[in-house]
Amino acid sequence: MAFHLNERLAAGGFDFGTTGICRVLLKDNALFPWFILVPEVDESITELHQLEAADYASVCFTIRQLSGFVQSHFQPDKLNVAAIGNIVPQLHIHIVARSPGDPAWPGVVWGCSEKRNYGKEEALAIHEAYLQSLA
Amino acid sequence: MAFHLNERLAAGGFDFGTTGICRVLLKDNALFPWFILVPEVDESITELHQLEAADYASVCFTIRQLSGFVQSHFQPDKLNVAAIGNIVPQLHIHIVARSPGDPAWPGVVWGCSEKRNYGKEEALAIHEAYLQSLA
Repeated sequence: MAFHLNERLAAGGFDFGTTGICRVLLKDNALFPWFILVPEVDESITELHQLEAADYASVCFTIRQLSGFVQSHFQPDKLNVAAIGNIVPQLHIHIVARSPGDPAWPGVVWGCSEKRNYGKEEALAIHEAYLQSLA
Repeated sequence: MAFHLNERLAAGGFDFGTTGICRVLLKDNALFPWFILVPEVDESITELHQLEAADYASVCFTIRQLSGFVQSHFQPDKLNVAAIGNIVPQLHIHIVARSPGDPAWPGVVWGCSEKRNYGKEEALAIHEAYLQSLA
């Protein structure tokens, strides 16, 4: 199996480590709390349905778990959960907290170029809260 | 439990009936083979992770099954699988076949207004193939 985290995904945020079989990334854009799950599977797998059944179940479990954390921690009005990958082919799933008034609302965040980087403390606090949610 | 298919979702395409606990709709836009799954659950549930565990597993199974059909039938370069719901609050999951050269590539289809309706025969043929994929 060959897994190397795509450089573009890695460069865009904070690495929260691996949960289940997914690398958990927080995108460095405080305008939309935005997580990316990257299943640590062979790079030939670029679609969710191509995952083996057990891996698929594991990824679905982690999506649910992380969605619950995002909902309770950020209290957004809506979650957007999506596997797109038109540009970065490595299989990855976006979990984005959305609320009326955010810069892309009610449109989608993909294609929106507005950005505010997290302060280091801010990102650390989210990481802490995430780890506590797993405990 | 109160479930009524959202009128906007119903009006936009062809109803392929219920598979598992999901209503299966084909959006009437031949530019992108585009399915929508609507879990037939109480309307208070607007997020995937709010589904009870068994319902969540069922929806995930149907996403995988339908994705496999879309891949094999339309042979796109990419699938886009997403639960967004910023505009239509009823929980629904998009499964869209994407290829370089389609009118929105490499962007997302949400927000793209280009459209070509299916011919009746064309939609019937997709429905037939879908039913066969379940058999």
